[in-house]
Amino acid sequence: MVRESEIRQGEVAVDFPAATDAGLVFIGTIRTPWTSRMETPRQGRPDGPPCRLELFEPWPAALSGVEKFERLEVLYWLHLSRRDLVLQSPANDGSVRGTFALRSPVRPNPIATQIVTFVAIEGTAVIVRGMDCIDGTPLLDIKPDRTLFTPIAPPQAGDFETG
Amino acid sequence: MVRESEIRQGEVAVDFPAATDAGLVFIGTIRTPWTSRMETPRQGRPDGPPCRLELFEPWPAALSGVEKFERLEVLYWLHLSRRDLVLQSPANDGSVRGTFALRSPVRPNPIATQIVTFVAIEGTAVIVRGMDCIDGTPLLDIKPDRTLFTPIAPPQAGDFETG
Repeated sequence: MVRESEIRQGEVAVDFPAATDAGLVFIGTIRTPWTSRMETPRQGRPDGPPCRLELFEPWPAALSGVEKFERLEVLYWLHLSRRDLVLQSPANDGSVRGTFALRSPVRPNPIATQIVTFVAIEGTAVIVRGMDCIDGTPLLDIKPDRTLFTPIAPPQAGDFETG
Repeated sequence: MVRESEIRQGEVAVDFPAATDAGLVFIGTIRTPWTSRMETPRQGRPDGPPCRLELFEPWPAALSGVEKFERLEVLYWLHLSRRDLVLQSPANDGSVRGTFALRSPVRPNPIATQIVTFVAIEGTAVIVRGMDCIDGTPLLDIKPDRTLFTPIAPPQAGDFETG
């Protein structure tokens, strides 16, 4: 069962900082088939239903070249998640684990990252498979999958450093 | 050469939105060997130098169980990057590509994601290899690598949906 806003047995909440340190802009909206947190997938799958990443102006111009990549990394803002738990009980069975040892949506900065399959560009939207969020989730970023991308900029000294 | 703040031939900047839509909290600071953007790696490497993810209170309690994962995903805020370019020229040769077809630090929400090798927990810090950012970069999140993580929470209908 998905958490709405309750705290479960064994979980620990902290006082969330009163001020934030940086601001995000929502660059678009994600359209998916899931309208309730009770049905949304825990994890996307490469053969999942096509979903739309609909970009707001002025960002569609930044899509040029995206179609060259078979897989993309998508970042999005889990706007319904609480942010103040440091220990969580995903199975709701009294056992707990630290937030940084989980991929739970509940985290101090609820940013999800997902690797998706590119399907098509339709106007100012990107169609992809592999999403796992509720319809209407705010979009933060799109990048090529790291395993498919080679930097175009020349290397720097640190690229050769081991230790 | 790393960009400082200039715009290169062929690049296109937009009017950045005046208001932001959500706030981030910096959960820690990343300590690396690189103190200038002119030497920082373009891409981290698994055998790179050990770096420290130093957590601020109240977040160290959320590290419980992190040591079980050989690889972690780290999210951080590229605080020195401009955010308003939609077309970029990484090679500075007049050719341009859309921001979403690049893993450049210059993007509307300059959030970097990296897969790193877990080395150790030392007090309230996590030691990892594979980072590629300048010393002092703000930390946003730590999660298990997606390929090593199986959800503990029970599956939902969407997990079985294809289309």
